[in-house]
Amino acid sequence: MGRVTVRRPVVTFSRRTSRKRVDALAAEEPLELRVGGKALTVTMRTPGHDVELAHGFLLSEGVIGGLEDISGARFCEGTGPDGLNTYNVLDLTLADGVAPPDPSVERNFYTTSSCGVCGKAALDAVKLKTSHSPAADDCTVDVDVLAGLPDELRKRQKVFASTGGLHAAGLFTTTGEALVVREDVGRHNAVDKVLGWAVLNDKVPLAGTVLMVSGRASFELVQKAAMAGVPILSAVSAPSSLAADLAEEQGLTLVGFLRGDSMNVYTGHDRITA
Amino acid sequence: MGRVTVRRPVVTFSRRTSRKRVDALAAEEPLELRVGGKALTVTMRTPGHDVELAHGFLLSEGVIGGLEDISGARFCEGTGPDGLNTYNVLDLTLADGVAPPDPSVERNFYTTSSCGVCGKAALDAVKLKTSHSPAADDCTVDVDVLAGLPDELRKRQKVFASTGGLHAAGLFTTTGEALVVREDVGRHNAVDKVLGWAVLNDKVPLAGTVLMVSGRASFELVQKAAMAGVPILSAVSAPSSLAADLAEEQGLTLVGFLRGDSMNVYTGHDRITA
Repeated sequence: MGRVTVRRPVVTFSRRTSRKRVDALAAEEPLELRVGGKALTVTMRTPGHDVELAHGFLLSEGVIGGLEDISGARFCEGTGPDGLNTYNVLDLTLADGVAPPDPSVERNFYTTSSCGVCGKAALDAVKLKTSHSPAADDCTVDVDVLAGLPDELRKRQKVFASTGGLHAAGLFTTTGEALVVREDVGRHNAVDKVLGWAVLNDKVPLAGTVLMVSGRASFELVQKAAMAGVPILSAVSAPSSLAADLAEEQGLTLVGFLRGDSMNVYTGHDRITA
Repeated sequence: MGRVTVRRPVVTFSRRTSRKRVDALAAEEPLELRVGGKALTVTMRTPGHDVELAHGFLLSEGVIGGLEDISGARFCEGTGPDGLNTYNVLDLTLADGVAPPDPSVERNFYTTSSCGVCGKAALDAVKLKTSHSPAADDCTVDVDVLAGLPDELRKRQKVFASTGGLHAAGLFTTTGEALVVREDVGRHNAVDKVLGWAVLNDKVPLAGTVLMVSGRASFELVQKAAMAGVPILSAVSAPSSLAADLAEEQGLTLVGFLRGDSMNVYTGHDRITA
């Protein structure tokens, strides 16, 4: 564990010179998630906060609704070439009465039996699974608070500072107080770690919070925010069309291109105060 | 088809003002890939070049080695709320004698029976599947050519210009001539479309080429380059540790932080000439 960076030799070229040095790279390792001993998914992630990642993933996929739905988590088998446990296989035990995930869980978010594979079906599938929809959350956030979040996130990106190579997600109050920041080579993993932190601290649904992400806002990130009851998702870069559609349907405020003093609000702009 | 952007209303806030306008967002829709009528995977992608995406995906996963391994591709069933075909379900038919993919194909790249789930196992799995390893490719590329590629890529990003929200991948010769550029909301999809273009044009293995990507270089992107025999992968942003490990094992040149005149060469710097 603790392998969040790896040092490697590198040659830096410019048009006139080249020099050799040692560089720190963001660590990437596979993590196999199991539920009740059965393999559910494998994700490439930056090691660390794996129990959070697992809780956030299961929340996002609609398998669990909160802390009470998980009775245990343990790293199991799987040794590397050095004979040591890789800490890359994590098995979650569901509480009594919680239905195990459908092995085709990934497909279920994009297809419903009533319709072909399309954006509408993907929206409908989220609607069916959401139990913490943020639609009724009447919190507001000041435009000045939002404008400050990218810097607040960056200040807390410890691994990015040394590698320049990690996505980040942070959860903030509507007054701009940082609750948790996580980094990962995969942007969906960074969000799962943040949401898993909230599950483990019994803070779901996340009313009155802003989820700030370092990159773009895809359908998948809006889905994760909606499943956790987050009312405001803000991103440094652009949203996709389906991300905006899902945010609108779920009553979530979607902010993009949050840079300097400016930002685009795609849905739910009633929550933004100037 | 042709739904690569979607227009939506947006409110732009700054600290002093807000104004309403219509913005173009990058389109995102699910695509279900089937092989021989059986569902293999669903990916969220920007519609367009889907047949390329499917060919590139199957090449990357080791299911096919080239054009001769696919006998047909057709969009099938699946209508949206308007009753029209969504063009979101694509069925590929393999040529006689080509083994269909293992339904757990995704897992196979990260785990082998000889070892637990770890980075080493992921490297070994790629080694087993690669038939076009770039190790023996003795092409070289001038540092000036590499330094010009980000601009050459950006110039060809038509959808990015209107949305600011798409990843891009481009294939170039070692003298800097652009062969193909593709954009997608998913960076792995942009690369699959480029590699699928190469499969459909019977250009695999891609000796003497540079694959340029707009973002970071993950394990998955190096895997895709190696499976297609691409000798040089260059990225605007950082590589991960496992990306560098895999590039080294596969004899691939990995360039990161390619910005302005400067770049970091993590592996295979013998192919770079100053």
